Amino acid sequence: MAFGWIDEQARARRRAGLVRVLRPRPAQSPLLDLASNDYLGLARHPEVAEGAARAARTWGGGATGSRLVTGTTELHTALERELADFCGFEAALVLSSGYAANLAAVTSLAPYGSLVVSDAQNHASLIDGCRLARGTTQVVAHAEPDAVRKALATHDGPAIAVSDTVFSVDGDAAPLTALAEACRERRAGLVVDDAHGLGVLGPGGRGAPHAAGLAGRDDVVATVTLSKSLGAQGGAVLGPARVIDHLVNTARTFVFDTGLAPAAAGAALAALTLLRREPERAARARAVAADLHTRLTAAGLWAVRPDAAVVSVRADSPEEAVRWAAACRTAGLSVGCFRPPSVPDGVSRLRLTGRADLSGSDIERAVRVIGETRP
Amino acid sequence: MAFGWIDEQARARRRAGLVRVLRPRPAQSPLLDLASNDYLGLARHPEVAEGAARAARTWGGGATGSRLVTGTTELHTALERELADFCGFEAALVLSSGYAANLAAVTSLAPYGSLVVSDAQNHASLIDGCRLARGTTQVVAHAEPDAVRKALATHDGPAIAVSDTVFSVDGDAAPLTALAEACRERRAGLVVDDAHGLGVLGPGGRGAPHAAGLAGRDDVVATVTLSKSLGAQGGAVLGPARVIDHLVNTARTFVFDTGLAPAAAGAALAALTLLRREPERAARARAVAADLHTRLTAAGLWAVRPDAAVVSVRADSPEEAVRWAAACRTAGLSVGCFRPPSVPDGVSRLRLTGRADLSGSDIERAVRVIGETRP
Ligand SMILES: Cc1ncc(COP(=O)(O)O)c(C=O)c1O
Ligand SMILES: Cc1ncc(COP(=O)(O)O)c(C=O)c1O
Repeated sequence: MAFGWIDEQARARRRAGLVRVLRPRPAQSPLLDLASNDYLGLARHPEVAEGAARAARTWGGGATGSRLVTGTTELHTALERELADFCGFEAALVLSSGYAANLAAVTSLAPYGSLVVSDAQNHASLIDGCRLARGTTQVVAHAEPDAVRKALATHDGPAIAVSDTVFSVDGDAAPLTALAEACRERRAGLVVDDAHGLGVLGPGGRGAPHAAGLAGRDDVVATVTLSKSLGAQGGAVLGPARVIDHLVNTARTFVFDTGLAPAAAGAALAALTLLRREPERAARARAVAADLHTRLTAAGLWAVRPDAAVVSVRADSPEEAVRWAAACRTAGLSVGCFRPPSVPDGVSRLRLTGRADLSGSDIERAVRVIGETRP
Repeated sequence: MAFGWIDEQARARRRAGLVRVLRPRPAQSPLLDLASNDYLGLARHPEVAEGAARAARTWGGGATGSRLVTGTTELHTALERELADFCGFEAALVLSSGYAANLAAVTSLAPYGSLVVSDAQNHASLIDGCRLARGTTQVVAHAEPDAVRKALATHDGPAIAVSDTVFSVDGDAAPLTALAEACRERRAGLVVDDAHGLGVLGPGGRGAPHAAGLAGRDDVVATVTLSKSLGAQGGAVLGPARVIDHLVNTARTFVFDTGLAPAAAGAALAALTLLRREPERAARARAVAADLHTRLTAAGLWAVRPDAAVVSVRADSPEEAVRWAAACRTAGLSVGCFRPPSVPDGVSRLRLTGRADLSGSDIERAVRVIGETRP
């Protein structure tokens, strides 16, 4: 039968304890959420929901076409201006997802004959960008600017280095300043994915490139998602106007994709407005994560010190991670459970997020439950 | 400078008349829209906008995480059930865009050692899926089932043939029945992208696979977008439950992407409800396209006979297409202008869509303007 080979793979997954199941949640979940990427607690904020609702009523349910045909509304342009301004870049381009933004940035900035130096623990969307790009990719050791420098030195012609700013699984930050230096020495571009930095790092959540003084430089491009701190959907590429113009003309996930739905653009704009008004949310998310880490470590658990709002807790095996997360859920706590092949290093773990709207007692309860349910 | 090489490409584009610019539209555009993919006129329908608004209020501005973590709501599940049921498939999986759905389907169904036979005029997202897949791709002549048969005969082991059902640029339909036969002979799977078929072809707009009697077969997988006839954003893969389960476990654009925003899911569900109540919208879109074609041809223009709702009108050069589209816009008509590299055959054209809500006088006016503005 045509798809018969699928069954053998399914059996192998079951044997290895690596089966994934979807767990639909109701609108009002009774669980305490330490699993989502809603770092600032904005996805359910009334102003964000209302921003989405208003945009849908004003502009319709969808963008109706490619951004190059009918899919660019004045709402998209307003969001692009605000994203660029907030994060400190000259220009911005909004795409339908952070995934699409990463594919766009990497493929358009790595033409035939160019070199892409990619961190070994980069997000899947950056990796897929490297695979799709016409340039040659060299994967280098995680968070090693010297490895990037060496790789760049092997090549003449256009080159970029590509890195997450905050790595999504372990929550550690990239050495941005050193990476930028290595790139500048070789006149290479630096492309960083600030999916987990925007809203969390930098003054008022303006992101990791802003925090590192790299925003607005003519050799730095950042991608962001609207789906995490901004509580919406979508992604954007931020950079020099000439780079953004180049993407408008060449990025396949921009040219051949329907524009972002107005509701998502409206939600993201409302979230940015809120964040400008309440900049302390960013620091609060970081503080919650730091508090979670301190308490988990004090309880004898192996947690990685967070550089942003992600706290990673190691488990001994995929099965143990699954049982642990399930026990947390039974005790009223939703935590992320990351296993191969979704972890770059093969290590299974619980992934917690320090959301800005968690109270002190939420944090205490979370740490108690995670400690008590440890397999 | 890092991105200096971009300027030379920009100059070459200018010289070739291939520069793309974004043209933001206001909420109430004065232009008659023959450019969008809003085939049924549902994007601005109050019930669709309200479906988006209600979902945002109930579920928030975003899905907050991967579908495997917090990103699956009961709304996503309801949409998946309705899409599968409406189109006649066993199961469905919703992703953040049609682009992501195509990447998911092709990469997950073309493992290492497999063969992908791909139509030469397939959409960019299917092509990128082929490039990302671990299998080997063989590109075959456009709409030639015998070429597919021959290509499949060269390979043992898992294989799929991949095709648009309605080709997005010229609007011609794929020979689905013959493709399915060629696949069945070789026990290959058939993966079809029904982006421009859903809502337009088949009884009540149930899509091209349904119309061809292929929906629900154990060797057929379809992808759809929620961004065209359904007036929203997002995409879905439809197929046997075992295939959908395989994608849940393996598709990178599913696993590593934030779930579709609730507003988009709500808008798409509202559109499907409308389409069940007003099934005649599908036939009306086809009739409008046929009428456009007849009248354009009678006016001496070179238009391709539409198999669905896309009407393609050839232009002599990219410059001519740009001037023609601009003149239409000046005369109050929005038409698509497709040029290299966005056209598979290098031919520039105007691309019109026969939307179900165009009146007879809209059509007359459109044909008159297109005829009068011809360069
Ligand atoms: C580091 C990183 N980049 C990009 C993405 C993709 O963004 P989106 O989900 O908005 O498509 C994610 C997560 O989903 C991520 O963690
Ligand atoms: C044939 C085809 N497939 C897939 C897509 C991508 O779908 P989406 O825009 O919903 O991502 C498009 C257009 O955008 C298309 O024309």
